[in-house]
Amino acid sequence: MSRAAVLLIDGFEETEAITVIDVLRRGELRVDVLGVEKRRVVGSHQIAVEADALLADHAGDRYQAVILPGGMPGAAKLRDHDGVQAFLKAHHAAGRTVAAICAGPIALGKAGVLQGKRATCYPGFEEQLLGADVQRATPVVKDGNVVTSRGPGTALAFALALVEELRDAATAQKIAAAMLVT
Amino acid sequence: MSRAAVLLIDGFEETEAITVIDVLRRGELRVDVLGVEKRRVVGSHQIAVEADALLADHAGDRYQAVILPGGMPGAAKLRDHDGVQAFLKAHHAAGRTVAAICAGPIALGKAGVLQGKRATCYPGFEEQLLGADVQRATPVVKDGNVVTSRGPGTALAFALALVEELRDAATAQKIAAAMLVT
Repeated sequence: MSRAAVLLIDGFEETEAITVIDVLRRGELRVDVLGVEKRRVVGSHQIAVEADALLADHAGDRYQAVILPGGMPGAAKLRDHDGVQAFLKAHHAAGRTVAAICAGPIALGKAGVLQGKRATCYPGFEEQLLGADVQRATPVVKDGNVVTSRGPGTALAFALALVEELRDAATAQKIAAAMLVT
Repeated sequence: MSRAAVLLIDGFEETEAITVIDVLRRGELRVDVLGVEKRRVVGSHQIAVEADALLADHAGDRYQAVILPGGMPGAAKLRDHDGVQAFLKAHHAAGRTVAAICAGPIALGKAGVLQGKRATCYPGFEEQLLGADVQRATPVVKDGNVVTSRGPGTALAFALALVEELRDAATAQKIAAAMLVT
């Protein structure tokens, strides 16, 4: 079974994170929700979620995909966290999928994984997508092993694009139908 | 500040629940996330969320709105829980908003609050919307104090409709724009 890691840190955007975990698990991907600093993580709208494990306990694992939600100050904390940066760089170097939504792509920018890649983000964070060919109007942008998206309103599309990437288009379409996505 | 209660029980649908809490808090509504059986609640996709309080500790409170997510077996457990039924009936009798999405409306049906009302739900649960004029193709249905919706893919629309109902249309539109809902 394919494995994906979703990284959570205090201040994450809840709808973005939970939608991705929910949809990927519907796609029968194994998702490890990894708390960056601790297992009890509180989102930017004060929703407390319990991570499955700590990032530190899986720092040496290599997942098929590493996925970052947005939200502030969460995304800035992901960007500035040494362990997160090392984890992103290792996965990118291994050719694995690195993905982020909303303000999350600023952490990818700092890790250098957006160099020469088309990418998107929440409006206002474009200058932190270092080296990227910024796409301002596309809900979900895939370029090689990098998948980015724009905000809570595009979270379902982002999650379904990840299922398509990590599984296949038929599985993504089946999930979209079951979730009544129009 | 207007107050809303979101009821969580093991087996709730995470995207539906979290989207509603997130959006309502963006609308500066006070949202109490109430655990029906316990504070640590695990969704139908194994995401553990910590409720703010127990329903039993707020059973006598009257909120402006009571909101139920779907998910199975969560929705069936909400339907069959005496405390939930009493809470729904008391709010309905007081003219407060009662709202549910996906399979959640089956709990409203059992409480008798759908009698003579237009309502919707996830496909397959229509016969449990006792006494309702079932709307099969409308993402969000509002009839008097009852608001219902169909599934995870309509959760954002459901949440924004609740903001419009509990605050106003301008606030809902502002949130939709900030969340990049198209």
